[in-house]
Amino acid sequence: MKAVDLNSDMGEGFGPWTIGDGVDDEIMPLISSANIATGFHAGDPTIMSHTVKVAAQHGVAIGAHPGFRDLVGFGRRHINANPEELINDVMYQVGALREIAKMHGLTLQHVKPHGALYMHAANNTELAELLVSRLHAMSPELILYVMNGSAVHKAACKMGHPVICEFYADRDYDSSGSIVFTRKVGALDADVVAQKVLRACQEGKVHTVDGVDIDIHFESICIHSDTPGALNLVKTTQKLLLQNGIDIRPPSK
Amino acid sequence: MKAVDLNSDMGEGFGPWTIGDGVDDEIMPLISSANIATGFHAGDPTIMSHTVKVAAQHGVAIGAHPGFRDLVGFGRRHINANPEELINDVMYQVGALREIAKMHGLTLQHVKPHGALYMHAANNTELAELLVSRLHAMSPELILYVMNGSAVHKAACKMGHPVICEFYADRDYDSSGSIVFTRKVGALDADVVAQKVLRACQEGKVHTVDGVDIDIHFESICIHSDTPGALNLVKTTQKLLLQNGIDIRPPSK
Amino acid sequence: MKAVDLNSDMGEGFGPWTIGDGVDDEIMPLISSANIATGFHAGDPTIMSHTVKVAAQHGVAIGAHPGFRDLVGFGRRHINANPEELINDVMYQVGALREIAKMHGLTLQHVKPHGALYMHAANNTELAELLVSRLHAMSPELILYVMNGSAVHKAACKMGHPVICEFYADRDYDSSGSIVFTRKVGALDADVVAQKVLRACQEGKVHTVDGVDIDIHFESICIHSDTPGALNLVKTTQKLLLQNGIDIRPPSK
Amino acid sequence: MKAVDLNSDMGEGFGPWTIGDGVDDEIMPLISSANIATGFHAGDPTIMSHTVKVAAQHGVAIGAHPGFRDLVGFGRRHINANPEELINDVMYQVGALREIAKMHGLTLQHVKPHGALYMHAANNTELAELLVSRLHAMSPELILYVMNGSAVHKAACKMGHPVICEFYADRDYDSSGSIVFTRKVGALDADVVAQKVLRACQEGKVHTVDGVDIDIHFESICIHSDTPGALNLVKTTQKLLLQNGIDIRPPSK
Repeated sequence: MKAVDLNSDMGEGFGPWTIGDGVDDEIMPLISSANIATGFHAGDPTIMSHTVKVAAQHGVAIGAHPGFRDLVGFGRRHINANPEELINDVMYQVGALREIAKMHGLTLQHVKPHGALYMHAANNTELAELLVSRLHAMSPELILYVMNGSAVHKAACKMGHPVICEFYADRDYDSSGSIVFTRKVGALDADVVAQKVLRACQEGKVHTVDGVDIDIHFESICIHSDTPGALNLVKTTQKLLLQNGIDIRPPSK
Repeated sequence: MKAVDLNSDMGEGFGPWTIGDGVDDEIMPLISSANIATGFHAGDPTIMSHTVKVAAQHGVAIGAHPGFRDLVGFGRRHINANPEELINDVMYQVGALREIAKMHGLTLQHVKPHGALYMHAANNTELAELLVSRLHAMSPELILYVMNGSAVHKAACKMGHPVICEFYADRDYDSSGSIVFTRKVGALDADVVAQKVLRACQEGKVHTVDGVDIDIHFESICIHSDTPGALNLVKTTQKLLLQNGIDIRPPSK
Repeated sequence: MKAVDLNSDMGEGFGPWTIGDGVDDEIMPLISSANIATGFHAGDPTIMSHTVKVAAQHGVAIGAHPGFRDLVGFGRRHINANPEELINDVMYQVGALREIAKMHGLTLQHVKPHGALYMHAANNTELAELLVSRLHAMSPELILYVMNGSAVHKAACKMGHPVICEFYADRDYDSSGSIVFTRKVGALDADVVAQKVLRACQEGKVHTVDGVDIDIHFESICIHSDTPGALNLVKTTQKLLLQNGIDIRPPSK
Repeated sequence: MKAVDLNSDMGEGFGPWTIGDGVDDEIMPLISSANIATGFHAGDPTIMSHTVKVAAQHGVAIGAHPGFRDLVGFGRRHINANPEELINDVMYQVGALREIAKMHGLTLQHVKPHGALYMHAANNTELAELLVSRLHAMSPELILYVMNGSAVHKAACKMGHPVICEFYADRDYDSSGSIVFTRKVGALDADVVAQKVLRACQEGKVHTVDGVDIDIHFESICIHSDTPGALNLVKTTQKLLLQNGIDIRPPSK
């Protein structure tokens, strides 16, 4: 690998509130793609506008990060909504960010559903196919960020819609290639994370919680901005990649 | 006048709830421009999608109807927000509708702020100028629906942004040309309303609550869909205008 | 049966919006127990205050009708929340109504969860037991309205908490005793519904969609106020019961 | 002064979000009265339950901190609501907290409106009198926290409702006795704040931004938990007061 994308969720505050360590503005210059919260699980128009502006200043590509309509649950709780209404919710949020991006002279690079909606699109073929087909009809250029082998990944491949597979730097994998999800992620050792990412980039392998190595395919590294110590994780990872000749670059460039 | 626009607020339900008599789908074929609620005071993505679809079926031009973020107050209560955040709220809502319109093959014709936000833009020069300048920079083709002589009307004229002045068929005027606002509008006599509209179209005059006639300038007739008996008001007015050779036509045509 | 309770959901509007035919004030005098929406799926403090006042005028017993925090989905969509947060949500809503009831000199008779939360308490033993134990510790007198044989019914019996079983007048049963849920209930024949209720009261039997009769046990009849034609259903049922010597009376009297 | 109350706003997060430095649990042991956010401007049932539990552990008296229904604006923006609906909103929030307090074996000591609602009650006699009369009728024991000389203070004195006047440790006063409100409060010197408080307690005087000393009357010191460095302000102030023989004690003890 000569270059890789580094993406992070940005603008996930709401009104006066911040999430994680509140260091979005410091993380922004270090990443290449920002997933910007679009108001349903987090983010409000003024936070969105600020986040887009900061992304523009640092030449960071932006994407919509739509979620379930669930502020109090931060979009992490599955809601038993029908696929049609979910697609409408996604389009609403994508359009809202697109307009605010336009205010700052930017266009959208990608869409990455958030939290429980990301998992729903990963696991539910009906939703995944409806989402991809609508998105493809409306915005064939909007890259979908997906988990390798997920329902939405398969749907996108089938319909020829552009995708980017992610490697989750701050999550553990098991030997099936699945992520070991935990609601609360504790502080991680930044050097360990950075080395894990570097190895994944160089060798295409990751060590699992089951004690074996598995192959891993990805074009983007995801580091969650609400992981404690996120800024340091991003800094250390970015530095190690650059030192090893791997450029940080968005897929659209 | 050979033709006039007839606009009405559409899609102002929320989730399972309807407003007024719940007859939007029957009013739609009778009007030429629909102001579609965009989620902050009313409307949700699924209602928006349905409303756009119905507008498309009847060839009705559509516009965004953004309001204060205040569902319980239906956007009728002024909120002491700063102009920058209000503009961000408006852009968010415009973009959301624009994307949903695109799903149904439509583009936006206009923007008409709702309720207390309409009044704020009418009365507050700072907000009015910021709104017009941002809108003009981003979407110089999006017509603003305004009250004749209001702050936002003046701002639009100054900056060369397209406007449409409204005549409020279901409201009373006083001799200053202002509307006599009442929180609850009772049932109106449809024939009286239709005759008032016809006279305004033909003579450019309206009889005021003070007992005198005043001159009135407008390009669009507004009938509120939540006025009791709204469907009958629209039907009767539309019919009388057509009978008198006045076509109902959106400004964009 | 000499007397039976007749309960209905009341106050399920929000802000300016009404649900169903908007005839709560006319249904109220005909029922004995009102389940008052408490703000999370429907209802706002001002609607709650109005609804309690009308209940007080007609001597109708009141209960809290708490739901999932989901206005747009009207509390009909399951949300994957943890039991502790759901219990906190319920207590918050019960307390809010209790205070507003106090404003009008009333105390609460009962609690009846709404929609998806009612179904969750019916199906999930963990939630059911936590709900009953907390409620029993705090308010041993607050009757729980339940589906006969459900998880929450069993939990209440085990802990000695007072319950009332319901008969759903406007829903169909199958031969297992379960209700045949449908998202949209069409207009029903009021006389058929009333006769079904009368027979259930007199014989303890209901005819199922499978074509057989089953035994039915209940102390309260539920007619949903958002069923189309609800007012007529309630009127016809109430009249037929009274004509047959069955009094309409809340369990607390 | 042998003793004084020290109050702070607690539980003003929402869902996953925190406000200020997120140090409520560390401030709690240092204060005597906690104003707990009740869900309309901040706070959710689970945060409320946690906050009440922590208050109970440290023997801190609790009160309701109701605000305008405005999460995104954090209750700091005035909303042009009518007094009746505001009173209903307050009662709803008071009841919600009362029930959650009961879960943890506590009763409410006081009510302190938040932000723009606090200012509205301070400035608007109609609202102030309605609020006091309703509260007095329902809960004559619930102490109102007020600004000395404000409309709500006067209304409470007139009706014989118990009040506590506040001294704002982290705000500046002008020579009229009014607070110099600023939207963003910068970091303050903790020793300066503590000395200001001590002098106010011992001499009943405060130095104003106009350069003169004025008399100040109060029974409670308010330190805002979202002021940057709040924990240190509270710690330093509490220590200095104790060192000077002034006990920190809630008015109810």
